[in-house]
Amino acid sequence: MAPTRDRILDTTAELFRHHGYTGTGLKQIVAEASAPFGSIYHHFPGGKEQLGGEVIRRSGRMYYELFELIMDQADDFVSGVGDFFAGAAMTLEATDYADACPIATVALEVASTNEPLREATAEVFESWIAGAAERGVAAGLSPERARSVAVEILCLLEGAFIFCRALRTTEALAVAGARAVESVSEALGADGA
Amino acid sequence: MAPTRDRILDTTAELFRHHGYTGTGLKQIVAEASAPFGSIYHHFPGGKEQLGGEVIRRSGRMYYELFELIMDQADDFVSGVGDFFAGAAMTLEATDYADACPIATVALEVASTNEPLREATAEVFESWIAGAAERGVAAGLSPERARSVAVEILCLLEGAFIFCRALRTTEALAVAGARAVESVSEALGADGA
Repeated sequence: MAPTRDRILDTTAELFRHHGYTGTGLKQIVAEASAPFGSIYHHFPGGKEQLGGEVIRRSGRMYYELFELIMDQADDFVSGVGDFFAGAAMTLEATDYADACPIATVALEVASTNEPLREATAEVFESWIAGAAERGVAAGLSPERARSVAVEILCLLEGAFIFCRALRTTEALAVAGARAVESVSEALGADGA
Repeated sequence: MAPTRDRILDTTAELFRHHGYTGTGLKQIVAEASAPFGSIYHHFPGGKEQLGGEVIRRSGRMYYELFELIMDQADDFVSGVGDFFAGAAMTLEATDYADACPIATVALEVASTNEPLREATAEVFESWIAGAAERGVAAGLSPERARSVAVEILCLLEGAFIFCRALRTTEALAVAGARAVESVSEALGADGA
């Protein structure tokens, strides 16, 4: 079995995906992580807020690593973006429309209610934008266009997740993925890459 | 003062925007609506879930009416879409990045946890897609392209709201709005409208 601290982090991340931040209780976390109640405050003296901040940053990092993996395996930037959306749609269907963005629900919950956690989500999102933009620059885009394309792709992805989860179809991810692929192709063409 | 039932609905809608569904308590609702506690169960015998469902549908309808108003005042479909994104960015800034989509937070919270409320968000989103697509058809798009463009615009909008609220900038709405305008123009060109 993984160390208690890791089990708590993994379990909390999973609960955040399905129930959000407010809907996840400490009792539920220790029960599902098979951890003694006191272990949360032992490992996270700041309680739920500290745990929440670490889970947001950790989930954000892991999701970005998935993006890197898919991009590294793809032939080029354009097909990597298409693969990422296709993979997201398959994961959603396979998990009964539960596993989408690991931090979006929490990000909306805390945006106007918890400044330290809002900052954690902002750090994660900014790192995703910067990372995707870096890929765009490596593919030949100007830094300005790369950032704008990165923001556009991420908006399409996050928006599609909302519609797919609510409507329980993958239509929005198919439309958004096609648009993202087209936008990346057009941007590369415009920058002569 | 508005009738108690309307005050409860308005207050709950406002609390959902800022705190989400789980983060909004019945005590908080009656306090902010200046209503006696029993009035919630008098007007909404099904309690928080029934109230939640009515608020989701009502907020969805009101937000769609705003879309209709902006589209009716615009010269054409393309500029209407641009106006809507520009207006959304102004509202976000004016409300300290609080007022974005009235139901997105709740939609993500309930997607895997509360089926009746998930269905309410699905109804709202489907009505928005159908309504925006109808505008596209009126502007000259084929029904298929109109639906796809409507889904794309709504993904861009919802995704941008997440990034703008978390990052406290309007960058994502500017990028998403420019993309939406371009996509509508291209679609109209492709369908020879």
